[in-house]
Amino acid sequence: MVLTVAETDLPALYCPLESAVHRHARQVDAQAVRWIRESGMCASEHEESWVVATHSTDFYARFAPVAADDRLLATSLWVYWGFAFDDARCDNGPLSRNPARFNALAGMVQRAAESPTAFDAGERFIGPLQDIIGRFRSFGTAAQVRRFTDAHRAWLSGVCWQIGNQAADRMPELDEYLAMRILAAGGEPTFAMLELATGLEVPDAELRRPAVRALTEMAIMVAALDNDRHSLRKELSRGHTDQNIYNVLMRHQQMSLPEAVEAATRIRDRVLTRFMRVHDRIRPRAGVELAGYLQGLRYGIRGNAEWGLRVPRYLSLGHVPDAMDEAPLEWAQAPADSHDTPLPLAPAVAWWWDDQVL
Amino acid sequence: MVLTVAETDLPALYCPLESAVHRHARQVDAQAVRWIRESGMCASEHEESWVVATHSTDFYARFAPVAADDRLLATSLWVYWGFAFDDARCDNGPLSRNPARFNALAGMVQRAAESPTAFDAGERFIGPLQDIIGRFRSFGTAAQVRRFTDAHRAWLSGVCWQIGNQAADRMPELDEYLAMRILAAGGEPTFAMLELATGLEVPDAELRRPAVRALTEMAIMVAALDNDRHSLRKELSRGHTDQNIYNVLMRHQQMSLPEAVEAATRIRDRVLTRFMRVHDRIRPRAGVELAGYLQGLRYGIRGNAEWGLRVPRYLSLGHVPDAMDEAPLEWAQAPADSHDTPLPLAPAVAWWWDDQVL
Repeated sequence: MVLTVAETDLPALYCPLESAVHRHARQVDAQAVRWIRESGMCASEHEESWVVATHSTDFYARFAPVAADDRLLATSLWVYWGFAFDDARCDNGPLSRNPARFNALAGMVQRAAESPTAFDAGERFIGPLQDIIGRFRSFGTAAQVRRFTDAHRAWLSGVCWQIGNQAADRMPELDEYLAMRILAAGGEPTFAMLELATGLEVPDAELRRPAVRALTEMAIMVAALDNDRHSLRKELSRGHTDQNIYNVLMRHQQMSLPEAVEAATRIRDRVLTRFMRVHDRIRPRAGVELAGYLQGLRYGIRGNAEWGLRVPRYLSLGHVPDAMDEAPLEWAQAPADSHDTPLPLAPAVAWWWDDQVL
Repeated sequence: MVLTVAETDLPALYCPLESAVHRHARQVDAQAVRWIRESGMCASEHEESWVVATHSTDFYARFAPVAADDRLLATSLWVYWGFAFDDARCDNGPLSRNPARFNALAGMVQRAAESPTAFDAGERFIGPLQDIIGRFRSFGTAAQVRRFTDAHRAWLSGVCWQIGNQAADRMPELDEYLAMRILAAGGEPTFAMLELATGLEVPDAELRRPAVRALTEMAIMVAALDNDRHSLRKELSRGHTDQNIYNVLMRHQQMSLPEAVEAATRIRDRVLTRFMRVHDRIRPRAGVELAGYLQGLRYGIRGNAEWGLRVPRYLSLGHVPDAMDEAPLEWAQAPADSHDTPLPLAPAVAWWWDDQVL
């Protein structure tokens, strides 16, 4: 069965959060593109053109509009690296259905992120990753770098999970999907870079508070579900049966595609409204570092949506990426669901709504 | 080919570190054994008898001889849980060669460790894990609990890697093996529990210093290689071809078993002597929390060796576990290798010897 969905069938996104973009995004991106060309991480010009077309500097310039230029460059390089790795090793290629080999690759990549002396001449993504993390070490504190590498492991663990399901032709139920997607979406390292970008180090006791952890997870979840939405047209055009929120709902909750689109929008909006409620409770008493971090979560949700609605990664259906879309964006005026209660059938994330825990 | 090695063929361990054991270990263990029986995590009395025979309270009582009793109980419960999970889900059983399914299980188990509301009635190890981590939350700080759960993910990522290699009949080379073993050995969560046991929270800036991270990794590595040694007789008696330091060296460095035993001893002793050198440089200027943590690493290396030389998990070759061995232990008087230079063929851990990085 091949389903199709026109862009107009997807409801506009609800996202009443601040929009901002770093004013040197273009100049920094020129440096990033030079780095990509010189890094050796792309196997062909075709691969390189799709990596460049992720416009990762534009992406991260929205997460960290106030970063020093060298920090915006290094963090954007990781986003470029992440997309390149994802496309070549996770979503496509011989390892994308081979969890045994992918687990080992993920292990060696993660080790390279943590160990400055790790070396693997056989894997083109390892040297460039070490270059990027060397930059993080040059301007970040040891705690900030460690938070990033821990988040990097969390991401890879999610990719291993996703690849395992793919290899076993296993479509997870909603609860498992949400738990997996929080990790596999890459939001953990992306948001962990906020501290590296701004230089603000959140005290451990504040960063680890359950409410702050819940806010981080909810920000990741909203962005991840938005990316499922952004990718939907492309997925459908290719007849993909990948793990995404729509396929999960269609498979396990007997929904049609339009029903799944509506249900996914409600899930996403309920999480976003909970994010905003918890944020508004925590922010007034946050110190300057935590306030900067929370603002970064807001910028990130918004920036990811703005970028995702325009980026050729999601929009271009052809062999060669189109230019970045510049059309003005339209937004929904109200959430599709603002119930302040846990999502049904999703115990793994139910604690986000538990005021006793937060 | 079935090789055999008598216990006397293994050289005595070199371990000039302090020995200590919690004075209430026996009483606390009685509570732990009651908990195991009531937890529902064992599928049979036979499984339960092997879990109890891991003597995990004796194990952790040596890591944390000064813990409050309730903290020794909770941390020992996790060790019991870890061995039980390892035996039933990682080393044996249908998932031990199925990385696709194991990745998903590891994902859900890790989610249960992080999310108090996660629920999975189909997996008998999840409820007991949540009970244990609930105890950690009751007496630990949010930062301590988060350090533990991050370490827990690191462990599971190593097990996924190991199971992938096993499924692919792939014996890793030394460099990969060491990187994998640091994770899969379970040392990360075991040492992360030191803070929960003692209540001392190491400031993030100190815990994340490269030298302290290197000390943690070296402590894990020594204990892991000691466990390879402790398990060798049992592995050989079963004709196992599992991933361990001896099989790695025999396969990739063309060594006989006696040569591999000698080479592994040199590797282990070189790491231990480097640990002691770096420790002696860091300890004098450590604050009280960091000093407590470093002492815990020393107690842990020593305690793991004492426990491993006597525990029926490694010694009992029959169907039913024997009683704990009580024979006095003999120790080597000098290291087999005290070169203060990186191990050959192991770039992933070479930075432990880099004074510029530490």
